[in-house]
Amino acid sequence: MTLEESMLDMGHRARTASTRLATLSPKQRTEGLEAMASALEAAESLILDANKRDMAAAREKGLTPAMLDRLALDSGRVKSIAKAVREVAALPDPVGAEIARWTVPSGLDIARVRTPLGVIGIIYEARPNVTADAAALCLRSGNAAILRAGSESLQSALAIATALRSGLKGAGLPQDAIQLVNTTDRDAVGYMLTGLQGQIDVIVPRGGKGLVSRVQQDARVPVIGHLEGLCHAYVDADADPEKTVNIVLNAKMRRTGVCGALETLLVNRTVAMTLLPAIAAPLRDAGCELRGDDAARAILPDMTPATEEDWRTEYLAPILSVRIVDDLDAALDHIAYYGTGHTELIITENASTAERFLNQVDAGIVIHNASTQFADGGEFGMGAEIGIATGRIHARGPVGAEQLTIFKYVVRGHGETRP
Amino acid sequence: MTLEESMLDMGHRARTASTRLATLSPKQRTEGLEAMASALEAAESLILDANKRDMAAAREKGLTPAMLDRLALDSGRVKSIAKAVREVAALPDPVGAEIARWTVPSGLDIARVRTPLGVIGIIYEARPNVTADAAALCLRSGNAAILRAGSESLQSALAIATALRSGLKGAGLPQDAIQLVNTTDRDAVGYMLTGLQGQIDVIVPRGGKGLVSRVQQDARVPVIGHLEGLCHAYVDADADPEKTVNIVLNAKMRRTGVCGALETLLVNRTVAMTLLPAIAAPLRDAGCELRGDDAARAILPDMTPATEEDWRTEYLAPILSVRIVDDLDAALDHIAYYGTGHTELIITENASTAERFLNQVDAGIVIHNASTQFADGGEFGMGAEIGIATGRIHARGPVGAEQLTIFKYVVRGHGETRP
Repeated sequence: MTLEESMLDMGHRARTASTRLATLSPKQRTEGLEAMASALEAAESLILDANKRDMAAAREKGLTPAMLDRLALDSGRVKSIAKAVREVAALPDPVGAEIARWTVPSGLDIARVRTPLGVIGIIYEARPNVTADAAALCLRSGNAAILRAGSESLQSALAIATALRSGLKGAGLPQDAIQLVNTTDRDAVGYMLTGLQGQIDVIVPRGGKGLVSRVQQDARVPVIGHLEGLCHAYVDADADPEKTVNIVLNAKMRRTGVCGALETLLVNRTVAMTLLPAIAAPLRDAGCELRGDDAARAILPDMTPATEEDWRTEYLAPILSVRIVDDLDAALDHIAYYGTGHTELIITENASTAERFLNQVDAGIVIHNASTQFADGGEFGMGAEIGIATGRIHARGPVGAEQLTIFKYVVRGHGETRP
Repeated sequence: MTLEESMLDMGHRARTASTRLATLSPKQRTEGLEAMASALEAAESLILDANKRDMAAAREKGLTPAMLDRLALDSGRVKSIAKAVREVAALPDPVGAEIARWTVPSGLDIARVRTPLGVIGIIYEARPNVTADAAALCLRSGNAAILRAGSESLQSALAIATALRSGLKGAGLPQDAIQLVNTTDRDAVGYMLTGLQGQIDVIVPRGGKGLVSRVQQDARVPVIGHLEGLCHAYVDADADPEKTVNIVLNAKMRRTGVCGALETLLVNRTVAMTLLPAIAAPLRDAGCELRGDDAARAILPDMTPATEEDWRTEYLAPILSVRIVDDLDAALDHIAYYGTGHTELIITENASTAERFLNQVDAGIVIHNASTQFADGGEFGMGAEIGIATGRIHARGPVGAEQLTIFKYVVRGHGETRP
């Protein structure tokens, strides 16, 4: 088979599996997930062997220590991958749930019922755990998954996918509900982006900006994508100083590499003189570089000057850009212009200022008086997530099992004809 | 300005208007809609003059009588366009509605709140009323609209759009919430499909299969599309004869040109001998041609033989293809293979057979014992609709004002930081 033929074959197998998955009971999907977790635990040594091969190749290629760390598995990490699958098994099953039901004057009984999306193509990068996380969320929501791992983690991903498939088989579920592209050929991604002749319903890219923007550019099927998290905090004139210092430090420094990390701080001019030094001290103690506009540098002259580029940059690193703004409107303008629609924060004790911010900012998540690092499906009580969507259709914010579904209308009649 | 520059300018104006629209109150949007309706009534003679120019050009081009009828306006039609806008004004405003609200263990109060999609590009064909219908639904849902009318109706559409914009202006709302592409240059559609550098959030095509498939093929932004309505009815072994005859006749013949019209009838073999003649007689009396497979023609030998092509054709005409099937599973297989995900019907008195059909058929609308012609936003109690979505993400079935929204998460904290 050519690559194209084998990709199309994969698409057809996925569609067949998805048709069966959609008609299983929630209990059967739960049993499948539990069997997948057990199979992962049973395959630990195979998975670790495969990971050793990936690691050896990665060292040869000269990957950075940070990249090697993301790729590396050990017994504890395999166990936590299995544990995450068990957590998804414990989530409520969204498929078949009635979202709404009503009767219309013609006599028809109309229900809006959740259904799976169908076949989801997931394209991701190095972390081996994504293979299991994504497959589990897809199964929970009744979807078949076609997974495309990064080339660095292909051996690990294959070993994990093999275990997941054997778990499905053991539970009497269709193995082709989870398929992994078994090649590093980049053309495979291109075929996925065409939708495999209608066999892929939606593509979820999970990775860096380069990957996601390529997918959004080239895909011929809908994309649920997470592009960038250039998150802002606006410190209002009525901000509580202690909350401000704590929240900003946590939002920036708890983990700097996550999409919900704070990247730009906007400080109201009337409180900047007192608050900015108080905010800056613990940030600097924690190793954060501050880059400020002229007004901020008038207060803290040892800041690096911020350039236009800084307002546009998702650092994912211990760097914070700081701008002094005249008022809420100036902060809203800055966020409307530079924001990426991910997570935006206001710190204030003034309820009406807060409500204006929450209402007017156009982002997946808007927060009043709490850290931007809460931008996470688990923290939202949604269980696992496949990412935080920054697009504007289908889903925004954390994408969990429920967000991987759509609905249909079930109409029950009694012989009605339309006049 | 070049066409590209003027299209980009339109996109930026739409974005600016959409930002303002989103922060208006529901009452302000309602007043805008009412002012639009009044402005349409006041502009009746201008609209009719413009329509005369379209009609003269259309006659010269040799459009069919059916196309001329769709294009033609008179005083009554203008009044009913205005009335439809008033009906949208009376619909509940979806923007800002809390869909859900809960508290998580960290203490955060999380609400999921409806927001507009932003800027919607609508590409449609001849009917002049779509200009007002689409603009009204967009405004009701807080979205700015960029409208691209068919070239045959451009003068009528311009006159209608001018009236709508003057209504907006009179009500103190941004006129650029409604913009119409003022050229017949086909390249304008191409620019819209690129998303105008991020200024269009979603494209809604409304027209024939050729238009919709071109849009789905070329769009670089999400599409909420209605591709085809190849609707099936399965007459089960336990179907009530009288209901069957009434429902099939209505589903096929009430209006044959609508997307919810029945195109293929699947009849269970055990009842075909008695039921098929009873179904066929009133259909033929009403002028419907029947095309059958061999088994159907063994019962009614004067049917035209159905070919593979028939199972794939949305006739939109008084033609019905008829196939005899062994059982529910055979009907489900036929629908899974040939269905377009629009509306599918089962006629049976057996509740468990009905539930299996409703559960297993993958379509926007699945119906038990009522005509497929109920596939309509108005009949569903949703007010006006912009179409029936046959895709699998964002919305399926009738797309009304609520389906032209997305949501954001509003998080209210008390100083929480994430451990």
